[in-house]
Amino acid sequence: MLLSIAYDGRNYHGFQVQKNAVTVEEVFQDALVRVFGARLPVKGCSRTDSGVHANQFCISMKTESRIPCERVIPAMNTNLPPDIAVTDCREVLEEFHARYSCIGKEYLYRILNRTARDPFSEGRALHYPYPLDTELLRTACRDFAGYHDFTAFCSSGSAVEDTRRTIFRANVERKGDFVEFRVAGDGFLYNMVRIMTGTLLEISRGSIPVEGIPEILESRDRRRAGPTAPAWGLYLNRVFYSESELI
Amino acid sequence: MLLSIAYDGRNYHGFQVQKNAVTVEEVFQDALVRVFGARLPVKGCSRTDSGVHANQFCISMKTESRIPCERVIPAMNTNLPPDIAVTDCREVLEEFHARYSCIGKEYLYRILNRTARDPFSEGRALHYPYPLDTELLRTACRDFAGYHDFTAFCSSGSAVEDTRRTIFRANVERKGDFVEFRVAGDGFLYNMVRIMTGTLLEISRGSIPVEGIPEILESRDRRRAGPTAPAWGLYLNRVFYSESELI
Repeated sequence: MLLSIAYDGRNYHGFQVQKNAVTVEEVFQDALVRVFGARLPVKGCSRTDSGVHANQFCISMKTESRIPCERVIPAMNTNLPPDIAVTDCREVLEEFHARYSCIGKEYLYRILNRTARDPFSEGRALHYPYPLDTELLRTACRDFAGYHDFTAFCSSGSAVEDTRRTIFRANVERKGDFVEFRVAGDGFLYNMVRIMTGTLLEISRGSIPVEGIPEILESRDRRRAGPTAPAWGLYLNRVFYSESELI
Repeated sequence: MLLSIAYDGRNYHGFQVQKNAVTVEEVFQDALVRVFGARLPVKGCSRTDSGVHANQFCISMKTESRIPCERVIPAMNTNLPPDIAVTDCREVLEEFHARYSCIGKEYLYRILNRTARDPFSEGRALHYPYPLDTELLRTACRDFAGYHDFTAFCSSGSAVEDTRRTIFRANVERKGDFVEFRVAGDGFLYNMVRIMTGTLLEISRGSIPVEGIPEILESRDRRRAGPTAPAWGLYLNRVFYSESELI
């Protein structure tokens, strides 16, 4: 069974179970116990950082239960807190694994770009009250696309061996007072999207040139990229399991 | 001075100061004290019910202060809680009054119309998981437009003498999973927009005919209209002070 959930990450220390911290996985499993009568082992499509949100996060699990998918959604939602909701449920093959079967993901970083705060996007977007040139950022972010070594865009302390990833597409769009950075790829390193965003903001400020991204990638030096943007603007937006979804 | 604020109404018992309940006005005046050094009398453009939100709510006040408008916005926002923000500030004539100078208002009622809950619209939209025919509701709601006696759309217990109001326009639109009911008029009775919304939902369910609104208006009988829809889907959306804004 493959479930999609959405969650507001403000009250959680990411997805994966941790000692001494409330995580989405733990709360999700508590709801599973109430619906399926047993604590089922689940597989999440990725880790997410503390405070990061998800418009789509995927979880696979094996169950002997005969509860049909369309009844799982309301049953789980009755048993989950208001900041987590199951949005989809489907049957999958026995060997399906939310993480290993995943061929790509899309992240969204939301920036509120106006002088005044917005009560409705508190903790759900980065408030950036300075000018942002959307066209400039759109041009700059295109250089993330392709197969690159993203060491410069990875927080130190990460133990990943292969730091090369393929970015399928990256784009910046303005929607009213919001500027949205969307990036899809076959995988992401620790804090990668937040460092990409921090780098775009430095480009907007003029402290990194608009054509500076290829050089930063090549340097493989974390200090050359911008700072890590805050968690609360970041959303895991889509999870891809088939080539057709990627287009 | 005329300030526009936006607020998430979940934590407040409406705008107007009350004994033993936290209101937006009270919290706003506390921030004024810190910015202007004095508790200034303020005039709000309307009362709002407990839990109702505002995308635009207007407040006028007289001040001897020489703080320029563009500095009032960030100063107030630093001193207001995250769920209230000043979004605009302008100088107005001495005789201007946020309520009496107002020539109209627009309300928005947001409905999340899909099976699954949405963590990001908890307490900010009504979750209605049953089918909604947007075309049908658009047709029905057009009958609210015009000069009518809205007694049937007013909660009993209201002490208003003249129950006639002019509705400039009413419309229903689908935006993805959301259905939005917008209504603009020269004034609104107690719970009027929430009863209008409840009536539209009854029309969708088939328990009131699509052409039933004129008859309900004529009856002046509250029992003929639908139930009062919950506060958390309602937003004071715009406040009009000049004819040109109405168009």
